[in-house]
Amino acid sequence: MSEQSYRERLHGRAIEITRRIVEAEGLEAVQARRIAREADCAVGSLYNVFGDIDGLILAMNGETLAALGLALGEASAACEQLPLEARLRTLALGYARFAVDNPRLWQAVFHHRRPAGSAVPADYLALQARLLALIEAAIADRIADGEARTRAARALFGAVHGIVALAIDERLGGAVAPELEQQVSFLVALIARGLNVGGAAS
Amino acid sequence: MSEQSYRERLHGRAIEITRRIVEAEGLEAVQARRIAREADCAVGSLYNVFGDIDGLILAMNGETLAALGLALGEASAACEQLPLEARLRTLALGYARFAVDNPRLWQAVFHHRRPAGSAVPADYLALQARLLALIEAAIADRIADGEARTRAARALFGAVHGIVALAIDERLGGAVAPELEQQVSFLVALIARGLNVGGAAS
Repeated sequence: MSEQSYRERLHGRAIEITRRIVEAEGLEAVQARRIAREADCAVGSLYNVFGDIDGLILAMNGETLAALGLALGEASAACEQLPLEARLRTLALGYARFAVDNPRLWQAVFHHRRPAGSAVPADYLALQARLLALIEAAIADRIADGEARTRAARALFGAVHGIVALAIDERLGGAVAPELEQQVSFLVALIARGLNVGGAAS
Repeated sequence: MSEQSYRERLHGRAIEITRRIVEAEGLEAVQARRIAREADCAVGSLYNVFGDIDGLILAMNGETLAALGLALGEASAACEQLPLEARLRTLALGYARFAVDNPRLWQAVFHHRRPAGSAVPADYLALQARLLALIEAAIADRIADGEARTRAARALFGAVHGIVALAIDERLGGAVAPELEQQVSFLVALIARGLNVGGAAS
């Protein structure tokens, strides 16, 4: 096997093993030695491919974001012609359901603490931008100014994310699945109403 | 010194030491041995007072929630006569500023993972309920039904919390302080508009 294809295979296999560990036991259980053992390679080979254990977790989280982006992108395309509230609700409930269906993978994206000063890879940032672009597209005809629209998309993402995060993490006001969907739908209805009344809010 | 007053003094001192460590280095740096050493007591005495290290962290987090509740309660009382949007904005920006001013204490409340199956103490739950009651009071004349109002308060808390959490944790769409306040104000304006238009939304 060429070195290139060995690296590629180890890349895929290590992410798969890490994902299995996270799904079963959570992010805390991820350890380089354990993954190297299960992948039948040396810890050094793992670091060779991913830089360090944070690089491996970022690679796994990137795949989670890609899957989320794909699911929401399809949902968004399917409701392009619907009124604003229905479009926003589709995105918001799609996000909530992804988190409910993949709680530990979703938590890994938001609980993972990068070492201080380490940069986020460009392709990871691109995946984040793609999620925000879906919201921007949904509100494009309500908020004409680009900067205001970006801020609005971030605020709306944060708002839905917060309800979902409290539910998944079982925190203050955190809700189980049906209650979670009711809270998200309630918020989206208010926001859509506010956007419809306000027109070009900034 | 009586045993009772020794326990009380150790209780206060250990929380103070823990808070100092969290403010300087974050929740990850909290260790029973270190706190016992700095409090000049045995680890066993610490466990005697708090049960375990999670009990100590919960006690510290309870004081953070109490301080937050006090700050927001005063802010809320001062704007009782103002229109809905101004009241909600006061609460939301008060929450955001508390997090910005005390990022690590605030993170400790939301990042602390309790051991599986451990119950949250009743007085801790009471502190959480007090925060939600401030939001419920602000929207009481818009949502008459008690259950719908509780759900609404939780959704609104979650929404603002999400924007704040992404900013403090520097996550997707996370914003620095001025941008954070703009996002929170934008969201509150939409929500207030939605509540004003919708009347008794549920």
